[in-house]
Amino acid sequence: MKLADLRTPALVADLAALEHNLAAMAKALPGARLRPHVKATKCTALARRQAALGHRGFCCATLREMEGMAAAGLGEDLLLANEVADARRLGALEARVTVAVDSPETIDAAVAGGVPEVLIDVNVGLPRCGCAPEQAGRLADLARRRGLSVRGVMGYEGHAVGIPEREKRRQACEASMARLAAAHAQVGGDVISAGGTGTYDLNELATEIQAGSYSLMDSAYAKLGLPFQPACSVWSTVISVSPSFAVADCGLKALGMDHGNPSIEGARVWFCSDEHVTFEPERALRVGERIRVWPAHVDPTVAYHERLHLVEGEDVVDSWPIDLRGW
Amino acid sequence: MKLADLRTPALVADLAALEHNLAAMAKALPGARLRPHVKATKCTALARRQAALGHRGFCCATLREMEGMAAAGLGEDLLLANEVADARRLGALEARVTVAVDSPETIDAAVAGGVPEVLIDVNVGLPRCGCAPEQAGRLADLARRRGLSVRGVMGYEGHAVGIPEREKRRQACEASMARLAAAHAQVGGDVISAGGTGTYDLNELATEIQAGSYSLMDSAYAKLGLPFQPACSVWSTVISVSPSFAVADCGLKALGMDHGNPSIEGARVWFCSDEHVTFEPERALRVGERIRVWPAHVDPTVAYHERLHLVEGEDVVDSWPIDLRGW
Repeated sequence: MKLADLRTPALVADLAALEHNLAAMAKALPGARLRPHVKATKCTALARRQAALGHRGFCCATLREMEGMAAAGLGEDLLLANEVADARRLGALEARVTVAVDSPETIDAAVAGGVPEVLIDVNVGLPRCGCAPEQAGRLADLARRRGLSVRGVMGYEGHAVGIPEREKRRQACEASMARLAAAHAQVGGDVISAGGTGTYDLNELATEIQAGSYSLMDSAYAKLGLPFQPACSVWSTVISVSPSFAVADCGLKALGMDHGNPSIEGARVWFCSDEHVTFEPERALRVGERIRVWPAHVDPTVAYHERLHLVEGEDVVDSWPIDLRGW
Repeated sequence: MKLADLRTPALVADLAALEHNLAAMAKALPGARLRPHVKATKCTALARRQAALGHRGFCCATLREMEGMAAAGLGEDLLLANEVADARRLGALEARVTVAVDSPETIDAAVAGGVPEVLIDVNVGLPRCGCAPEQAGRLADLARRRGLSVRGVMGYEGHAVGIPEREKRRQACEASMARLAAAHAQVGGDVISAGGTGTYDLNELATEIQAGSYSLMDSAYAKLGLPFQPACSVWSTVISVSPSFAVADCGLKALGMDHGNPSIEGARVWFCSDEHVTFEPERALRVGERIRVWPAHVDPTVAYHERLHLVEGEDVVDSWPIDLRGW
């Protein structure tokens, strides 16, 4: 199939850029040094590529992602890097399953759900999930008393991964990891799971990095000067032109908007509506012409689409289902 | 099923509020005075309720919505209120199909696609699709020369529908409709299709109002003091609590974020991540507790979900597929 034959809007990935990103990360963090986060892509076909490059353990953000990865035969070592109040769906999986816990209630849920292994999730500065570092040892003791195997700790420095200046990013990461190290000293275990695309080569504590966005990248991370290439755009059709602006068929239901407007090469984006993007192009466009719209945030963009089309030049060489959507 | 048994995050609608909204609109704009826009809800089951109340014509924003409505037997009078560069999928439908056109190219597409009827789409002030009012007559002549039936004009005052003060909203609507009336004088035809939830009772020109959001409403429209009740929220589980904040399992992939953060009663929302909302509650919450998260913009929220669950008190009384997603 040709790119021109795709129905629009269509989520497309440049295969060469994607493969470059996967290879660059596999070289920097070989094998189990990377635990790819599937939330960014929600696609078992892409995860299979990562596994083929040596990364056999994955992390997920939702129960549906865990179920889908297990069903796809990618369950060698699955971490739900998130808290759940009901873990029964995890206990039913045919896979090695570890879940993050940060409270007595989530430990109860792991026990009740039949999940044998946990990581103690520690708040390292991002106000989201995770216990205070000084509570980690007590939670690990409780988990062990309840019969769980505590593999170690987890702590995501999400407030640091997007800091533009590399040295400041490193310092914020280091401060976070000091908190995680203190927790780990109380908890023990082999695993210190942390990091993301923005700190993949700055985090010196983590035994495994939880990066996901590096594979497709997005315009927010692209500003950091990382050695990964923007690979993911929404292929769109120009449906209306006027003397001062043009409109394409890619809107709020095809784009994650929390990081702001998408970008279009050679154009200034004005705004998006449900099924439209209005923009001011530098050159005259004609109705029916196709353009690439680059989402500001890939993760919630991918979650709107049924398929990711892989392209080489003008050819669509493969089409992968986004099969881990929903909950 | 009980509300407590729903997997979270889950899109829920309060059935009493939904029915109130549908009835209030049917009273204000009976029968063909309203052409409900299905883009807001993407749900044929909900559209069937609107049809049962007397609104037999609908408008859509995408080809998939048109196909789904036709397949559901709701094709008595379907308007694609949007431009397409390729209309062949429309021509194949077993339904009465009208498509908006705003250029010679989109007229060509209607002809080539076998779509017999069109509306001339006019830019009435929102820089999106639509021809300049002074071009409308020329386009109508062209369409008729090409063998198309021109039913009239369309012009969406999307820049006016959200103006907070009613009188200013009315004035902006009136100015837009003056442009549409000028175009209609050139074009002719029985149909003047315009309006939205914010101007449903202010637009005095339109023969039919294209409102959609009124059925579920959202927090942006709720500020206008309209007689419609917020009906749609995302039912979520608290998964982590700390002394100063709590976290629930409803994030960027469960919420349209272009209008900003969602709201939670009795709490201040701090921020959303992919699968989390962090917020500061007024009272202590416990892990496992369920809360309602109110999206700022319903349309792109609905598009993330597979089903809309209808609730009465603690009971889930029905569950409707969001069957018009995608393109």
